[in-house]
Amino acid sequence: MIVIGEKINGAVPKTGVAIANRDAEYIKELVRMQETAGVSYLDVCASTDADIEYEALCWLIDTVQEVNTIPLCVDSPDPEIILKVFPRVKEPGLINSISLEGNKCELLFPLLRDNPEWKAVALCSGGDVGVSYTAEQKAELAFKIIERAAEYGVTEDRLFLDLLIFDASTRNDTAIEFCKAIRMIKERYPNTIITGALSNVSFTLPVKKALNMAFLTLAMDAGLDSFIGDTTNRDLKALMLATNILIGKDKHCRKYTNAYRKGEIGPIKKD
Amino acid sequence: MIVIGEKINGAVPKTGVAIANRDAEYIKELVRMQETAGVSYLDVCASTDADIEYEALCWLIDTVQEVNTIPLCVDSPDPEIILKVFPRVKEPGLINSISLEGNKCELLFPLLRDNPEWKAVALCSGGDVGVSYTAEQKAELAFKIIERAAEYGVTEDRLFLDLLIFDASTRNDTAIEFCKAIRMIKERYPNTIITGALSNVSFTLPVKKALNMAFLTLAMDAGLDSFIGDTTNRDLKALMLATNILIGKDKHCRKYTNAYRKGEIGPIKKD
Repeated sequence: MIVIGEKINGAVPKTGVAIANRDAEYIKELVRMQETAGVSYLDVCASTDADIEYEALCWLIDTVQEVNTIPLCVDSPDPEIILKVFPRVKEPGLINSISLEGNKCELLFPLLRDNPEWKAVALCSGGDVGVSYTAEQKAELAFKIIERAAEYGVTEDRLFLDLLIFDASTRNDTAIEFCKAIRMIKERYPNTIITGALSNVSFTLPVKKALNMAFLTLAMDAGLDSFIGDTTNRDLKALMLATNILIGKDKHCRKYTNAYRKGEIGPIKKD
Repeated sequence: MIVIGEKINGAVPKTGVAIANRDAEYIKELVRMQETAGVSYLDVCASTDADIEYEALCWLIDTVQEVNTIPLCVDSPDPEIILKVFPRVKEPGLINSISLEGNKCELLFPLLRDNPEWKAVALCSGGDVGVSYTAEQKAELAFKIIERAAEYGVTEDRLFLDLLIFDASTRNDTAIEFCKAIRMIKERYPNTIITGALSNVSFTLPVKKALNMAFLTLAMDAGLDSFIGDTTNRDLKALMLATNILIGKDKHCRKYTNAYRKGEIGPIKKD
């Protein structure tokens, strides 16, 4: 499971305050927490007003790079901003995100073509379909994005397809459609990487952790490869590793028992 | 989801001590805890040596019946003991368990035939197959038990089929085979009730809760109707209700939000 750490995002209230105050220590602590929790990429997103986003994202990237050891997931809704901050990023990582909206494909696929060590998150939205609710809509958009990428020589194994997770409070069928879409897309393109922003499912509902956890298990069973979420939550991490055993992806429970021995899951051991 | 409360079982070390000491207050507290947690049946099992089981089970049933308000699941590996204690039980409940082993069918199906308000847990073990590990073995035994029941006029909707859950540490494929078996059996007999002893999956492994929770979500997705387990664990209960939303069995999240409002899931509210 490829985890993209979600905590360095100005949309998270405390992170937003830290970005506004240029509180470098707070941001660096978020880096360390997520690295310790074993994330594969660190999402870095300013989520500020458009007119100050470039400056804020530059500061954020520079701050994170002072301490981080894992690849960044450079995140902005504006492809122009991604192009501008791209040269600052020292190691190849992920671009978040491409979609069929506006001129994102035209601007960002050439960047991927010219930087073959980079990959991208591709949102299943935009085009004629707009926002994709049903499995069929998600798959249709995924296939279109994969085809557009191919026009630029970008192969599908470089795309993290974000199939969009909605809040279960208004869309009760969000998990069913998401899981069905995974199976549809994997059947045609087994090498794409399927991802999603896990905690969207519990938006506005109480006891969010239970919903996020149940969603993760269902999506992993359907073939999820990655998620954008929070594995500093030890219970979520334990569930992820437990699910791995049960779906047949951890022979002899080695990853699970090793994580336990290292103290990464289970009750926190006192010295 | 029909939950059979597992706590009143002499195989649970503390309960075993309470039974040995005839500690009625401890047993009554287990009744109250499980009723508050919303279980549908209370499993009552002495798990003592065979020569003292009848006396112990009589005491246990009498003690539980002094306070309980929900049906019992009368549990013994010995069908003769079940026949002997049966008249003490005041309200119709479940017999746990029938299987193709020995003369269980011959002794217990007539009891069900003559007591049409009672149902039974039927273990998928015994017969030519023995213990059922694969989905095919589980389904074969389930079909045989359903056919044997029919010979006594016991319809399949009165059978809780226990498909056997093994520990994932020695049988990594236990969840996969269990879930596959549910789908195979439901296809032929949609009215049977599928159950299993949830916590078996985590036997000998650390961080048992994570495994039990992931297993529950996967099995519910496959069509599980019931489990023998512990919903006094609030996290497990929240996950069960969350999974219900995600698999499309809680329209508008009403059961979930009601459970939250009543304080049954989520952080415990202080007065």
